[in-house]
Amino acid sequence: MSALHGGDAAGVPGALADAGLLSPVRAGTLVEAAVGDLAWLQAMLDAEAALARAQAALGTVPGAAAAAITAAASVERVDLRAVALAARETANPVVALVAALTACVARRDADAAGYVHRGSTSQDIFDTGAMLVAARALALIRADLGRVAAALGALAAAHRDTPMAGRTLALHAVPTTFGLKAAGWRALVLDADARLARLLAGGLPVALGGAAGTLAGYLAHARGHSPAGTGGPGGPGGSDEADGPGGSGRADGAGGPGDSDGSGGGGWDAGAYADRLAAAYAAETGLARPTLPWHALRTPIADLGAALAFTAGALGKMAVDVQSLARTEVAEVAEPGAGGRGASSAMPHKRNPVLATMIRSAALQVPALASVLTQTMPGEDERSGGAWHAEWLPLRECLRLTGGAAHTAAELAEGLTVRPRRMRANLALTGGQIVSERVAAALTPLLGRAAARELLARACARAAQEERTLEEVLGAAPELAGVLGAGELAGLCDPAAYTGAAGDLVDRALRR
Amino acid sequence: MSALHGGDAAGVPGALADAGLLSPVRAGTLVEAAVGDLAWLQAMLDAEAALARAQAALGTVPGAAAAAITAAASVERVDLRAVALAARETANPVVALVAALTACVARRDADAAGYVHRGSTSQDIFDTGAMLVAARALALIRADLGRVAAALGALAAAHRDTPMAGRTLALHAVPTTFGLKAAGWRALVLDADARLARLLAGGLPVALGGAAGTLAGYLAHARGHSPAGTGGPGGPGGSDEADGPGGSGRADGAGGPGDSDGSGGGGWDAGAYADRLAAAYAAETGLARPTLPWHALRTPIADLGAALAFTAGALGKMAVDVQSLARTEVAEVAEPGAGGRGASSAMPHKRNPVLATMIRSAALQVPALASVLTQTMPGEDERSGGAWHAEWLPLRECLRLTGGAAHTAAELAEGLTVRPRRMRANLALTGGQIVSERVAAALTPLLGRAAARELLARACARAAQEERTLEEVLGAAPELAGVLGAGELAGLCDPAAYTGAAGDLVDRALRR
Amino acid sequence: MSALHGGDAAGVPGALADAGLLSPVRAGTLVEAAVGDLAWLQAMLDAEAALARAQAALGTVPGAAAAAITAAASVERVDLRAVALAARETANPVVALVAALTACVARRDADAAGYVHRGSTSQDIFDTGAMLVAARALALIRADLGRVAAALGALAAAHRDTPMAGRTLALHAVPTTFGLKAAGWRALVLDADARLARLLAGGLPVALGGAAGTLAGYLAHARGHSPAGTGGPGGPGGSDEADGPGGSGRADGAGGPGDSDGSGGGGWDAGAYADRLAAAYAAETGLARPTLPWHALRTPIADLGAALAFTAGALGKMAVDVQSLARTEVAEVAEPGAGGRGASSAMPHKRNPVLATMIRSAALQVPALASVLTQTMPGEDERSGGAWHAEWLPLRECLRLTGGAAHTAAELAEGLTVRPRRMRANLALTGGQIVSERVAAALTPLLGRAAARELLARACARAAQEERTLEEVLGAAPELAGVLGAGELAGLCDPAAYTGAAGDLVDRALRR
Amino acid sequence: MSALHGGDAAGVPGALADAGLLSPVRAGTLVEAAVGDLAWLQAMLDAEAALARAQAALGTVPGAAAAAITAAASVERVDLRAVALAARETANPVVALVAALTACVARRDADAAGYVHRGSTSQDIFDTGAMLVAARALALIRADLGRVAAALGALAAAHRDTPMAGRTLALHAVPTTFGLKAAGWRALVLDADARLARLLAGGLPVALGGAAGTLAGYLAHARGHSPAGTGGPGGPGGSDEADGPGGSGRADGAGGPGDSDGSGGGGWDAGAYADRLAAAYAAETGLARPTLPWHALRTPIADLGAALAFTAGALGKMAVDVQSLARTEVAEVAEPGAGGRGASSAMPHKRNPVLATMIRSAALQVPALASVLTQTMPGEDERSGGAWHAEWLPLRECLRLTGGAAHTAAELAEGLTVRPRRMRANLALTGGQIVSERVAAALTPLLGRAAARELLARACARAAQEERTLEEVLGAAPELAGVLGAGELAGLCDPAAYTGAAGDLVDRALRR
Repeated sequence: MSALHGGDAAGVPGALADAGLLSPVRAGTLVEAAVGDLAWLQAMLDAEAALARAQAALGTVPGAAAAAITAAASVERVDLRAVALAARETANPVVALVAALTACVARRDADAAGYVHRGSTSQDIFDTGAMLVAARALALIRADLGRVAAALGALAAAHRDTPMAGRTLALHAVPTTFGLKAAGWRALVLDADARLARLLAGGLPVALGGAAGTLAGYLAHARGHSPAGTGGPGGPGGSDEADGPGGSGRADGAGGPGDSDGSGGGGWDAGAYADRLAAAYAAETGLARPTLPWHALRTPIADLGAALAFTAGALGKMAVDVQSLARTEVAEVAEPGAGGRGASSAMPHKRNPVLATMIRSAALQVPALASVLTQTMPGEDERSGGAWHAEWLPLRECLRLTGGAAHTAAELAEGLTVRPRRMRANLALTGGQIVSERVAAALTPLLGRAAARELLARACARAAQEERTLEEVLGAAPELAGVLGAGELAGLCDPAAYTGAAGDLVDRALRR
Repeated sequence: MSALHGGDAAGVPGALADAGLLSPVRAGTLVEAAVGDLAWLQAMLDAEAALARAQAALGTVPGAAAAAITAAASVERVDLRAVALAARETANPVVALVAALTACVARRDADAAGYVHRGSTSQDIFDTGAMLVAARALALIRADLGRVAAALGALAAAHRDTPMAGRTLALHAVPTTFGLKAAGWRALVLDADARLARLLAGGLPVALGGAAGTLAGYLAHARGHSPAGTGGPGGPGGSDEADGPGGSGRADGAGGPGDSDGSGGGGWDAGAYADRLAAAYAAETGLARPTLPWHALRTPIADLGAALAFTAGALGKMAVDVQSLARTEVAEVAEPGAGGRGASSAMPHKRNPVLATMIRSAALQVPALASVLTQTMPGEDERSGGAWHAEWLPLRECLRLTGGAAHTAAELAEGLTVRPRRMRANLALTGGQIVSERVAAALTPLLGRAAARELLARACARAAQEERTLEEVLGAAPELAGVLGAGELAGLCDPAAYTGAAGDLVDRALRR
Repeated sequence: MSALHGGDAAGVPGALADAGLLSPVRAGTLVEAAVGDLAWLQAMLDAEAALARAQAALGTVPGAAAAAITAAASVERVDLRAVALAARETANPVVALVAALTACVARRDADAAGYVHRGSTSQDIFDTGAMLVAARALALIRADLGRVAAALGALAAAHRDTPMAGRTLALHAVPTTFGLKAAGWRALVLDADARLARLLAGGLPVALGGAAGTLAGYLAHARGHSPAGTGGPGGPGGSDEADGPGGSGRADGAGGPGDSDGSGGGGWDAGAYADRLAAAYAAETGLARPTLPWHALRTPIADLGAALAFTAGALGKMAVDVQSLARTEVAEVAEPGAGGRGASSAMPHKRNPVLATMIRSAALQVPALASVLTQTMPGEDERSGGAWHAEWLPLRECLRLTGGAAHTAAELAEGLTVRPRRMRANLALTGGQIVSERVAAALTPLLGRAAARELLARACARAAQEERTLEEVLGAAPELAGVLGAGELAGLCDPAAYTGAAGDLVDRALRR
Repeated sequence: MSALHGGDAAGVPGALADAGLLSPVRAGTLVEAAVGDLAWLQAMLDAEAALARAQAALGTVPGAAAAAITAAASVERVDLRAVALAARETANPVVALVAALTACVARRDADAAGYVHRGSTSQDIFDTGAMLVAARALALIRADLGRVAAALGALAAAHRDTPMAGRTLALHAVPTTFGLKAAGWRALVLDADARLARLLAGGLPVALGGAAGTLAGYLAHARGHSPAGTGGPGGPGGSDEADGPGGSGRADGAGGPGDSDGSGGGGWDAGAYADRLAAAYAAETGLARPTLPWHALRTPIADLGAALAFTAGALGKMAVDVQSLARTEVAEVAEPGAGGRGASSAMPHKRNPVLATMIRSAALQVPALASVLTQTMPGEDERSGGAWHAEWLPLRECLRLTGGAAHTAAELAEGLTVRPRRMRANLALTGGQIVSERVAAALTPLLGRAAARELLARACARAAQEERTLEEVLGAAPELAGVLGAGELAGLCDPAAYTGAAGDLVDRALRR
């Protein structure tokens, strides 16, 4: 089919680069839409509009211009694919986006068009847009994590005392409870949520640095705009509105060219303006204000990567455990199977654990993607040619894979079938050897440590060989005659009675 | 905007998950289209059609059914987004794709519909489709690598003897030539191309294993279809066409149910049929035939990841070198700047090295993505729940990032501006210290090793301190009076005359 | 040499697997010693001793036994290499370590030997040891980060107003100051330190779970040991000392075998004991007490990986910037070069930026290593066979590479040579084009936006072509006649006067 | 313990940075010794000696000097730890190693000392040493892979027809055979071995480039040494021996300073000399000769990383399958358990699959480590400050983890216990549903596709609900009365008779 080789042939838009086909874990989820190209484009437009409004609030852009820019800043007015294609010319999409936005504003208000992206730089817009996208995605992810934690909390409480085999290195070790397992999954999910919450609480920051992180461009434009005699821009009632960018007159005499920014006549205080602009920009976007421009200081990106990788890993833990317990031979849990979920095209009997499968597929990808976000921290100079650009896809993918995993985990946790009878049956599989540790401990004060161990080792080997239970073999052991009553021995060999502090640990965990 | 949170609201298709906005390195390139969701969907449909034709060639599916399936197997008849969304039910898109294809076939030929995906399994179709996509993408990438190598070969030849500073650990070391540098870039590109060529020559394989890698499903259907008395399916002129899947009659008596596959009555040879089916499937797809079904033996995927990461790294080497040489202070090369390329929104004077930037952005991502493709090799059992699914996105991303980088590198190599005058000027920056190694070597037989070294160390320090050239300082050194003539000293201190075997190495490299 | 193939031939200990040869960034640093095998072994011994003391504090191990164990728990009494080799039998070193420790204790106090590792499991000891090692290493790393931050703070203050070229995508963009650059490096270092401090403040946790995370083994032994009538172990003055593990008598009748843990007669409260044991163990080790046993909930490990990768990336940023600024053509900074540091064997004139090189080498490795620590979060069951074991080397390597980088960065920051004159000279390289953004902004209110831009673009091109300064070209531009005075133009074109809010940003950053 | 914080305090050598404690997968193996610091040091000394001999063969170093250097080039004469510590001064260990070697040579032959490292550069020695180490390690790894493949071949043949459950997404799918599974493991191992063999066949290359890859230093020294009138160095019987580096006389007049290398008087052909030197160096080391110096063209390193990651992944596949099959509930295989292997300190009954655990621990680490080796391909300039240095540890770790995994896999494959009875028992777990695919296929020609599917779906559901076998339910189905005989139905429902082409596939795979 020629279209496959033509890119943008009629009817086969390049937009179909990704419609979710290869990533069922997030196909159709809210987070997929929230971080998609269209959402990202809108977020960058939101950043442009917020910047204009912030400048207007300080009196260095006319309020009407800011309003016009805000009105125009909608993805419905911008051709996404055209912007994406044009991005090859400048290695980022902002230059083309600014051109498109400017043209759109100009069609309505020629004067306002000159105030688009005023004093700004591509990275300020891109990074602010990215933080808006991330903040929206994190909120969705946290909502799903909340569902997961709630469902797991209920499972942990319901199965506080449901005994099952504890397994280490693939083998039955000693008993545990399903409640403790579910409480552990929940603890990880709460840990993940706490890391995301911390990011949001600290505040994902606006990016505001101008061409090289000094805000000089913003200041240069603001100075030119500074109302005469007011001691700087931003005084209420400034007459800025008359000074359209297409105008030809000189706006004012104060703070004229030639003075050094950050000092000089007219009381113009560059530092104070920069300060107020950052605060206003943060207020307009709802993001936080960073200490320094972070074009080349990538703390927010690295933190996002780490928190998302943690979250994917936390959810992955539940997924692999569900897979382990859902195995045909184990069958202690089953995934929710409403409708055709988990159906196999070839095998009528199968109900595949597809939710766990999808979650695990995300957990296998996100750590590697997130590693790119620390690999790129050492970007050279005031903006790296490549390290910055390499962040974009991995960041988005971390957000949507993790978000998809969280959504999928909510379905899994809320619908998980737990089979206590099967757990009890599996506990018996080793004929009581699963409590050999306990019997050894109990016999130690009775027989001495060495004798107790030796007796147990022999009894275990014999029981395995003769396919008898440990209780049967020990019951016939002459060493125990008169030492242990039959009831005592039966009690010691009951796996369900050897769950240690599991119940208390569940209680403790659920208090969190 | 509500659409951002709604996923598939009218006019805002989920397809916009990725239109290239965040990945300028590949936006609009041929490889982007060749590996996009639409192309992937088509490749899976191609796999279904090829499978039906292969079965028809062996007489176990009616030829008319295979033709009907082939006719229907087009992305124009399948709703990509619907398939992507339905994939959440089964953790892969094939079940929904089969349903859509079957429905499409059924609308034209009810009997043929029953032969869709006959005896098959999702992974056979997905993996075969992935190999078709990969093969198409590799061909595109190789074409671009060919352009890169040709352009670099020309640069190496043209600048065989153009001296420039060799730099190690960021500092001038000894001279080299731009020809040798370009020849080195080309050598890496040829190495990359050789690795991709090897993959294609060995043959990306079809996937054909059935539900668990034994081909049992294919055999079971074929057996039921085996023409009586012909010693197995596939004899010429079999009357299979009469046996539609919706038919009610029993096709034949030979090889009836109850016999063991791989033996039994009627001369039916399961192994031979499996063998011929794999060969026919490979022939229909143009892919290779693997020794074993590879559902759980992921050699092709790991090999692709390794070769693509190598290619991205090879191109990245050229990119970082171009960035190093394009720095304002160095200015020995410049990127092609036709049109608005490299323009900055804020700074009229800049012409950014955007091609190198985009290539490097890919080189920073692909190794991590490729690492997922070896991380997932240890997938458990006959098909992993998660390890398989985690391959899909990284594989596609490796293909398109590397492909985009190759395309971008072709533009870069073909348009690179080289500035020999500037190279010569930079060579002089250290006042001849760049050849201190040579002078030391030349003086060793004259003064003895220790004295020669000591003299050089003193002279270098003095030259640096006094901002004089090494030649000036040495010319005044009493130790050299009568030992070296002025002409000899000048010759020794000429950086352009100390390029070692660079020219010969270029010749040698270009013979490859 | 046969020793190379023999492993442990006389005089060639296998210990020489790593003496630092391949990792100069940490060779000989304190952190190398703090995380080496010997230190790790000691930390595990410390964990065993602390466990015994904790049990003694609760009255379930005789105080004398705990003292004997503590006395014996020294690496001087254990053969490191023998333990390492024996670890192949059990996939972890703890089993052999316990055997060695027990033998050592037994030589002094046969009774005490039975209390070694009582009720415990390998992972409790290994993980607690790992946390002790990590805590010690983090303290060292933080001390070095403190040195780095202090030195950078001084540099930022000293160079608050030292102008230099701001560079983006390898090219001069607009001016900045070295103070702002140093303040940025410092901000990243403080961010890193804050992440490490948070880990330590939250508390690296002891591991205490017993065989499968229920503490059942500890409880079983404690129960057997519970002083009669006291309502549980741990009452002061219990006569436990009489009950050696080799003894033959039954210690008490209360809480006899057969009762369920966590309930039952005699007032024995398993949950309370578990609670107190964890608290005592934490107190003895100086580590924190976790909510749940974390054998399979790897939050501490993933957090360490993330914080260390962040730290390495933060230091790597400074390193690549130093390399960028140290390039022969740029020469704005130089590394401290006392003694032979940075010497080249071949080239007398070079003084390589080796500190930056070593730091960057760490920053290139740690993110990948840390990714293993999130990749392994989804370990199956109560203890994964492999995921746990895969953490050990990467964790250690993250600690020592990052620690080495921090130490190296302290040397770099404290000794960095800054060359303001060279910065000023480089600022002039573009003939004033570096301030084209500013001139455009200044002319916008004078000429209108479009005309100003057009004029600048023309002037920049002309200046570049004719190798004149922007000031010269603009000075001759008829459009500006009468609009700008010569002094105004000169002021506008002075790069040092266009540093935006850099000074204020430095002040702001240093207040942190 | 103060020694932990002192690094090299008496009796606690820094060499104990790694004695294998944290990496049981390779502790004590041959490959550990072959890639340890001592072996690496020896390999670099071997490189120095080979270089001197190569120069001697060409007549530019006296034969006696080369012999003296060779005699001195032993780790027994060099202080490993001192070299490692000194490496911090120059960011690599070669400078200190050269100093140590020179001193050692000088003690015996003062003249010879001047020929150590003549014309060379650190990277030539380090990289050549690394290739020697890698070649030795690959040979060891291949030997172990050979053992693995042989053992797996025997298992595959022995169990060609041993039926077992095929499992996909954790559930029983359709039957397979253990022979096919073992043949698949073997196929991956052979794939891995082929990749390593290809690397060795292509030849790991010597590094020979001099300070910046032009060989200029070698040529400068050789020229000074060129026998008069012979048309270049290397003529037989040259009188070079008289020209010690400490000598004071001028050796000859031909090829005097001032001529350009690569041309000029006396017939001295720089290119030809470079060519012959590379060939001689390759011959002396047993390594291959590369087309170009590869200081900055890292093909060999990237290839090693890829092949080793593949190998670790291939072995990891077997390991996770063994773990899956060894689970208590599955119990179809068991690890060899001679001696105390797999013993648990706490639980007498456990025999942990420790070999699979250790192999998997390697497979989880190597891909991330190998990713560093492609991440660093884009090193800038003629030698990167950091990218080169970041390769060393990951390369070594990839070699020894993979080597340890191969050794461990040999033990596992050679000692694996296979339990056909248990496999047969597990096959029956689903009451015949594992062959539902087959029954559906068989009934399709009898009932039509739709009716067959519908019947099967109902029967499967009913069988599961009533805990009856599929055969029982179908035997009572009125639809099948008169259609299928009881024997036919029993045959169809026998899992052991539905292994497809498994046997033939095993035969095919074993022919490889």
